[in-house]
Amino acid sequence: MNIKGKHYRTIWPHPDDERVIQIIDQRHLPHRFVIEDLKTLEDFEAAIRDMHVRGAPLIGSAAAYGMYVAALQFSASQNFDEKMREAAARLKATRPTAVNLAYAVDMVMKVIDQPVANGHEQELALVVAHHITEESVAHCRSIGEHGLKIIEEIHQRKLQQSPPIVNPKSSIVNILTHCNAGWLACIDHGTATAPIYAAHDRGIPVHVWVDETRPRNQGASLTAFELAEHGVPHTVIADNTGGHLMQHGMVDMVIVGTDRTTRTGEVANKIGTYLKALAAADNGVPFYVGVPSSSIDWSLRPDQGRELPDIPIEERDAGEVHFISGLDEKSGEVREVRLTPKDSPAANYAFDVTPARLVTGLITERGVCAASEEGLVGLFAEQKDK
Amino acid sequence: MNIKGKHYRTIWPHPDDERVIQIIDQRHLPHRFVIEDLKTLEDFEAAIRDMHVRGAPLIGSAAAYGMYVAALQFSASQNFDEKMREAAARLKATRPTAVNLAYAVDMVMKVIDQPVANGHEQELALVVAHHITEESVAHCRSIGEHGLKIIEEIHQRKLQQSPPIVNPKSSIVNILTHCNAGWLACIDHGTATAPIYAAHDRGIPVHVWVDETRPRNQGASLTAFELAEHGVPHTVIADNTGGHLMQHGMVDMVIVGTDRTTRTGEVANKIGTYLKALAAADNGVPFYVGVPSSSIDWSLRPDQGRELPDIPIEERDAGEVHFISGLDEKSGEVREVRLTPKDSPAANYAFDVTPARLVTGLITERGVCAASEEGLVGLFAEQKDK
Repeated sequence: MNIKGKHYRTIWPHPDDERVIQIIDQRHLPHRFVIEDLKTLEDFEAAIRDMHVRGAPLIGSAAAYGMYVAALQFSASQNFDEKMREAAARLKATRPTAVNLAYAVDMVMKVIDQPVANGHEQELALVVAHHITEESVAHCRSIGEHGLKIIEEIHQRKLQQSPPIVNPKSSIVNILTHCNAGWLACIDHGTATAPIYAAHDRGIPVHVWVDETRPRNQGASLTAFELAEHGVPHTVIADNTGGHLMQHGMVDMVIVGTDRTTRTGEVANKIGTYLKALAAADNGVPFYVGVPSSSIDWSLRPDQGRELPDIPIEERDAGEVHFISGLDEKSGEVREVRLTPKDSPAANYAFDVTPARLVTGLITERGVCAASEEGLVGLFAEQKDK
Repeated sequence: MNIKGKHYRTIWPHPDDERVIQIIDQRHLPHRFVIEDLKTLEDFEAAIRDMHVRGAPLIGSAAAYGMYVAALQFSASQNFDEKMREAAARLKATRPTAVNLAYAVDMVMKVIDQPVANGHEQELALVVAHHITEESVAHCRSIGEHGLKIIEEIHQRKLQQSPPIVNPKSSIVNILTHCNAGWLACIDHGTATAPIYAAHDRGIPVHVWVDETRPRNQGASLTAFELAEHGVPHTVIADNTGGHLMQHGMVDMVIVGTDRTTRTGEVANKIGTYLKALAAADNGVPFYVGVPSSSIDWSLRPDQGRELPDIPIEERDAGEVHFISGLDEKSGEVREVRLTPKDSPAANYAFDVTPARLVTGLITERGVCAASEEGLVGLFAEQKDK
């Protein structure tokens, strides 16, 4: 999508040197636009772990490019295979929740591990990374098309209920989203935002309630930034606000992304998603999840008798709760300030899991389905017997 | 309660000059401890509106002392009565949601409006302000005693389920609270925190999950501060976290305060309270509200067929979402930084209303009751026919 009128993706090979991968270093948004060169496995580990890049699909692409850079780095090494297995383990350890990370790393390993790959590991790793990236863009585009139909239906219903001649604002579709499952979390389009961009570009009036998404504020800093750059009307709100808005008919639908969705439709996503799903259910607001199939963990379902699957929930540094960064408008510098008393501990659980019963539908690249094994396998028949 | 070992209230007459009222200017907590002198009606308007003081019970006391200071200020005025009616209207206009504000202002007006008050308006206004303040302290103390029993029961149940010889931490009562309904929101003890302090002081092991409470961070800056000063174990969390904790059995009860509770048990409180009530209900976690009777609006109930009463919800300045203040540890100064992109609007609804069906019980100064007209009138029989 566009930034200041120029089209960008979130990750791309350096135009003058394919051995260098470039990313938007998202830690500086929305206040500064910084492009970073990644040249080593260590660069990629830091970029994923410290969230220069974030968002499940982008983490997947970044991990694949990380494997490619590792293959370059270790090409002269005596024990190349062992080094690559180490690289795979190191990349996988950077973030524990997103399934795309392991998926991408494993795909690169599988391809370069074949006897036929011998001597072509670097090119093959790059091909796989490109493939994962292009596939991700295509999936996001498809999610946008499928989700667009839902937005269009809501718009038509609102038009019928209150013609614009009575109230020009009455047919605007108000969509709440949490965290950033936008194009900045992907390569382009986004997952949760893809239907929003598609609707906006077709002239359907949409307005987005952007949860700021503490503690890392991905909504306030990233989703707001990308919607503003694309010209989509939106309003930033504290995470506490969505329930009140839904109680008062100010939200027509919720769309969020996911870091990992199980075979049976449970949705791991940014901490606080579950609270919005509860409020949506309590107020009859449809709750959708943009789910590229790369985010589906087909091996996972809740143990018998339990509602929630066993997904490891990342506990991040408490410093993300104690401190916050923002722009000091007086000096023009980005500064970190302390929010909490010195003697108060903090905890920082990064994700929660929304039970399938609270999810209206999953918007995948193959269409919209119920949040259930039946629904998902209906679209992905190849997973039926796995 | 204590700060650095010295006992404070949140508002008191200046020890050397009763015409001056002193407050803790809470805007500077937790980073600086600042006492402010309030000498004029204008000082009080600013202190309430700009949240130097906040919390329904404290706003009530402050408004009463504001009326007293106004009575001093206008004592020589030809049209004293008119000036006082203006003062009442101006103070009432500073914050629209808390019922204590109007209650306190009206009580002062009623007392000084009587013919017998003629010539004694100033002393009488001061007596009323003192009375409201002392009554508030007594009510908070009683709420603490009634709520203590609930915490004690949970502790005993946990002790029986898992003796401390097996797991010394297993009998700790984990309590989640939202915003600051602590002693800083009152005069002393607090409403939601009163049972917590009472339990802690009796040696019942408690641990408090402190919602940071965006956008103004009253949890991270005030509740955490007062719990730390009193030595109560606690952990600050992003507002998004409570649902996840409840899903995993890490919360034994929720206690919040209220800005206004209706005759039928609907609870207006800091925005986001409703989301925690939903999560509590979904996970079988008891959800209690500390309610001094001064926060009950006996005139209010939802219109027939509606679940929510018609309570005006304050919309505060969007700047509170765009900007945040914190301590710059490098310079030691408190700075404000921008969180959002320049082109993104923000909205700032300050309260929400939790339906009575989600509330396990109301802890009042007269005991614990169901969140219903029957429950409340059972404790406050004098309100039966009103």
